[in-house]
Amino acid sequence: MAAIALTDLPGRPCPIAAALEVVGERWALLVVREITLGATRFTDIVRGTGAPRDRIAARLKTLEAEGIVMRVPRTPHRDEYALTDAGRALRPVLAALLAWGAQHAVATDEASSPHDHDRTTKESR
Amino acid sequence: MAAIALTDLPGRPCPIAAALEVVGERWALLVVREITLGATRFTDIVRGTGAPRDRIAARLKTLEAEGIVMRVPRTPHRDEYALTDAGRALRPVLAALLAWGAQHAVATDEASSPHDHDRTTKESR
Repeated sequence: MAAIALTDLPGRPCPIAAALEVVGERWALLVVREITLGATRFTDIVRGTGAPRDRIAARLKTLEAEGIVMRVPRTPHRDEYALTDAGRALRPVLAALLAWGAQHAVATDEASSPHDHDRTTKESR
Repeated sequence: MAAIALTDLPGRPCPIAAALEVVGERWALLVVREITLGATRFTDIVRGTGAPRDRIAARLKTLEAEGIVMRVPRTPHRDEYALTDAGRALRPVLAALLAWGAQHAVATDEASSPHDHDRTTKESR
């Protein structure tokens, strides 16, 4: 469970900094996104994030220790992952990043790019 | 100006990942927080974030290149920083992190900690 004392933070004692101590690493939030979208198996989480396997393995361990992700044993050799209440509570953070990213980070000609809509276009013919 | 093609992202082509390509580094969002809170000078931004000076200098350059922060020349030897429209649009992301951090990242006994409320207590006597 994350329990950061504000006075231990290097700068301003602020819950934003405390939050970023826990999820302020790019892959952490993408792991939460993947599980939110239904990717519960390690392999699927790795594929969805596009991160190296060892980075995701390390990140899942940290997120589990911080009470954001939990392991759900399925078979002796295959665990699946789920979000805890604290993990599900990150949804507004993801929603805010989604809105900002769509508006300010994604290339503006993305919608008319033939590359990523190739399949859709072919299917609709 | 940030202009990330979704198809260039390593994993799922998603605006959240695009957003994190731009601001998915802990100090980036803390720099935006500091300027939001009125810290416009380099020294004040460094102090508020608690990050090493060189990290903040590098981060400010990146944020400026991505159109999130802009330099406002004041005197020949002292620039100040302001947020662009895209930078100000990050406020909902900071608000979501603040809410989540207060609820799930900050130590629960923080409110009753004598350390960070020392001054307030003395002042109210």
